[in-house]
Amino acid sequence: MIDRLAIIGVGLIGSSLSLALKQAGAVGQVIGYGRNRQNLEKGVELGVLDGFGTDIADCVRDADVIVVAVPLGAMQGVFAELKPGVSPTAVITDVGSAKSSVVSAAQAGLGDLLCRFVPGHPIAGNEKSGVEAGFATLYQGRRVILTPLEQTDADAIEVVEQMWRHCGAILEYLDVEHHDKVLAATSHLPHMLAYALVHHLSHMNEHEEIFRYAAGGFRDFTRIASSDPVMWRDICLSNGDALIDLIEQYQQELDRIATAIRNGDADELLKLFGRAKSERDSLIGNC
Amino acid sequence: MIDRLAIIGVGLIGSSLSLALKQAGAVGQVIGYGRNRQNLEKGVELGVLDGFGTDIADCVRDADVIVVAVPLGAMQGVFAELKPGVSPTAVITDVGSAKSSVVSAAQAGLGDLLCRFVPGHPIAGNEKSGVEAGFATLYQGRRVILTPLEQTDADAIEVVEQMWRHCGAILEYLDVEHHDKVLAATSHLPHMLAYALVHHLSHMNEHEEIFRYAAGGFRDFTRIASSDPVMWRDICLSNGDALIDLIEQYQQELDRIATAIRNGDADELLKLFGRAKSERDSLIGNC
Repeated sequence: MIDRLAIIGVGLIGSSLSLALKQAGAVGQVIGYGRNRQNLEKGVELGVLDGFGTDIADCVRDADVIVVAVPLGAMQGVFAELKPGVSPTAVITDVGSAKSSVVSAAQAGLGDLLCRFVPGHPIAGNEKSGVEAGFATLYQGRRVILTPLEQTDADAIEVVEQMWRHCGAILEYLDVEHHDKVLAATSHLPHMLAYALVHHLSHMNEHEEIFRYAAGGFRDFTRIASSDPVMWRDICLSNGDALIDLIEQYQQELDRIATAIRNGDADELLKLFGRAKSERDSLIGNC
Repeated sequence: MIDRLAIIGVGLIGSSLSLALKQAGAVGQVIGYGRNRQNLEKGVELGVLDGFGTDIADCVRDADVIVVAVPLGAMQGVFAELKPGVSPTAVITDVGSAKSSVVSAAQAGLGDLLCRFVPGHPIAGNEKSGVEAGFATLYQGRRVILTPLEQTDADAIEVVEQMWRHCGAILEYLDVEHHDKVLAATSHLPHMLAYALVHHLSHMNEHEEIFRYAAGGFRDFTRIASSDPVMWRDICLSNGDALIDLIEQYQQELDRIATAIRNGDADELLKLFGRAKSERDSLIGNC
């Protein structure tokens, strides 16, 4: 049971966490902090927040658990600002999509409180933003990856594990570098591909027509291009090396397809599409 | 009202058409032809078909409308085979995703029956295949593009329009070349991108892990990589020129993103993602 939870950055992820914990009866008070006062007021109105602060250090003062859910580029500043208010027994965690940059930010911003920090990443979300996008079941059956550091206190990890279990999530553990490599492949690269596609099509002469004739497949494929641009700018800048490697490898894969089309190489195309289909069907399921 | 409909190639598209027309009371008998006898028997069992033939010319003999729904590479052979059985008042249409290759196939295969042929393309479907994948509402509110030729008989066009209207579809008209260019952008390129992504990831050492940590966004993004490889091989070979152009332009777009990441160009990334998001949200809706 968390008596007082502070959420720094109350968007889809933070508000869904609050709603899930409230529904599970696993939290007392939830206090929010954010730069957009209207969003915080909406949070109170929706029952996501029991209150909000206008100063981070004040906001976290009596919290047992502090969840930092701001874009990656804002992490270091937030850690430094909240530090003066944090009680020594409190636990700090985050939800960032690239862990090495968060760990650097925590090292720089939290100093001797680093042992109370548990880097975390719920593999859940959608393309919506803001407190109104939150819903209590977002984490049901979804994975949350923790990437604890050598110096992370064991009791702090337990608190964070417990919190996510109350939301119905499945806990997983990866080291920081491995996490960033895997996420670059499953999440960061696909977002780049979707943004690049929509951006490219939006410059074609026929762009209105193109979107008019878009079927369900196109809608699904490009859904992630409706994600928050600031969040994704920061992810790019935070996991750049892994992402650039993958983009380069991916370009080679596209070259291979273009060459096969150019050469009319039916066998090569069939082999490639067949392997992709069977891999996806067997590992994700035909859905 | 169609008295007798012949469907050549009874997969998702053909069986959904039959179910929709039956539900609308707009068809008498539906006869299927295909190479997989088990699939045809299943079609009868499911009420999609009232019977099936083992010879195309026999199968189309008394049909008012003949719908060819085979992969693009099989079109020309099918047109030539069905020709001897077609009554002079019958209407022939197809559902192929690339129209210029279908038109060439029809010119070569149908000869003097070309005036009875209405090239068509329902912008509907999903990644499933086979007669069991069909459902009566697939075309509700979806667009069907017709690309009639100069010599196409007006009454033949009317019959095909009427057929699709009974399924709840919205009719649109494009010329062949324009259709192929627009579809390369909205459908053919995205399929290549999804196949390339899954194919690439399936070769990474961490591939099982990668698919394990795949969230909803990845599932949606890669859904089209579960599409039928034979169908997509044929689309690539049939609309190769438009597709290669687009792949090349798309690679430049990816280069631009990679360069911005490499240079830490936050403004450029934000601008690009922001434009993509607002374009998608305004033209497709945030869904």
